Amino acid sequence: MVEWFKRRRPRPAAATLRSRDEIVVTRVDLQQLAPAPEAFLARVAYVQLTIFENLARVTAIAPTAEAKHVVTLAAEAAIAKHRALVAELERLGADAGEAMEQHRAAADRFQRLTQGADWTEAALTNHLASGFLDETYAALAAGLPGDLGPRVRSILIADRRDAGIVSLLAAAMDANPRLAPRLAMWGRRVLGDTMILARDALDFGQDQRRSEAIVEPAFSELIAEHTRRMDALGLAA
Amino acid sequence: MVEWFKRRRPRPAAATLRSRDEIVVTRVDLQQLAPAPEAFLARVAYVQLTIFENLARVTAIAPTAEAKHVVTLAAEAAIAKHRALVAELERLGADAGEAMEQHRAAADRFQRLTQGADWTEAALTNHLASGFLDETYAALAAGLPGDLGPRVRSILIADRRDAGIVSLLAAAMDANPRLAPRLAMWGRRVLGDTMILARDALDFGQDQRRSEAIVEPAFSELIAEHTRRMDALGLAA
Repeated sequence: MVEWFKRRRPRPAAATLRSRDEIVVTRVDLQQLAPAPEAFLARVAYVQLTIFENLARVTAIAPTAEAKHVVTLAAEAAIAKHRALVAELERLGADAGEAMEQHRAAADRFQRLTQGADWTEAALTNHLASGFLDETYAALAAGLPGDLGPRVRSILIADRRDAGIVSLLAAAMDANPRLAPRLAMWGRRVLGDTMILARDALDFGQDQRRSEAIVEPAFSELIAEHTRRMDALGLAA
Repeated sequence: MVEWFKRRRPRPAAATLRSRDEIVVTRVDLQQLAPAPEAFLARVAYVQLTIFENLARVTAIAPTAEAKHVVTLAAEAAIAKHRALVAELERLGADAGEAMEQHRAAADRFQRLTQGADWTEAALTNHLASGFLDETYAALAAGLPGDLGPRVRSILIADRRDAGIVSLLAAAMDANPRLAPRLAMWGRRVLGDTMILARDALDFGQDQRRSEAIVEPAFSELIAEHTRRMDALGLAA
């Protein structure tokens, strides 16, 4: 998987605009790679828990009461997503705890790699990773059967309430000119680890080649969103 | 303050039942020691943030996905209280971040002392401390002016949603007979540190003697609630 990431360089969003003769593959097509509902919900619920844990850690190490407060808003949004996904999992008749347990290794590995050296790196991790993951999972959710797809999608696209974190990071970079270059590097590293975790949710099925043909342009679109998040912070992606 | 705690030994709840001739002082009378609204709300909002941080740490170190999930429910309840209190603070026209900043030292000291050595101790801290603090602050809230008192009280007495934590602790003690004696000792220590933090919110005003006459029986009632929480876990208080 690490090799995969090295092999395929992120492309700009423009790469998905092709000639009329070619089939245009977009993020929407990711739904074809949606895994079985229980496994998918368990993974996504556990990943939201991981995002929550990271945000909670940012709360603990944030420098002021105001900063802590701002971060709790995003933490609250992540728990709400987690809880709603657990409810969907239980609606399928699954033992949510047991089902989520299967996905700990991948998420815990991601968490270990993206903790960051201080609250600014940890906060940037959350802003970037939760954005990328929510968008990937929302695209996959469209492939879930029946009403489940739209319901899960609406859980995932709910506001992450992390605008305050972006403001905190912008203020921290204003106050310390050395911070931006460090965060730009960190953002690239986070993208790599996040893509590995996001890709881990895809079901490549029998036709690996066809699946890869869907993943690459879809991920290009998701990377373009990542680039927009970096740009909004004044960081080179 | 530490001296105060050593001087006055916790009494059983029965100590508040006195002869007919004496004035019966109860937890309700704590409202006479309610501090100014802004300072009170800022303190209580920051303490809820501290409780949230502790619960978030328990989530991170809890041993299974199921345990993590259960703890997030209580963490969500703590954030909801924090956010509602910040909203009340802002309704008073206060700068919530600045106002809460004044109360960091006391709460952070409490947090440092009550982290615990593992997830069971940290989870017990939260169950016991959030119970004691919410009840103390709810009693004080009755002394806030106008509608503010009932509103703040209803925020504070909202379900802590920590019944799942109690079940987790009970299961952990079943699985490991050495755990209960350790947690019983830990619970006593947590009570001490929690009382110091709770007492820090009281406004003793001019008449220290009269204030102390209110505090002692009121705290006896609060300690009785603590004892009930310990009993429910099978722990000697």
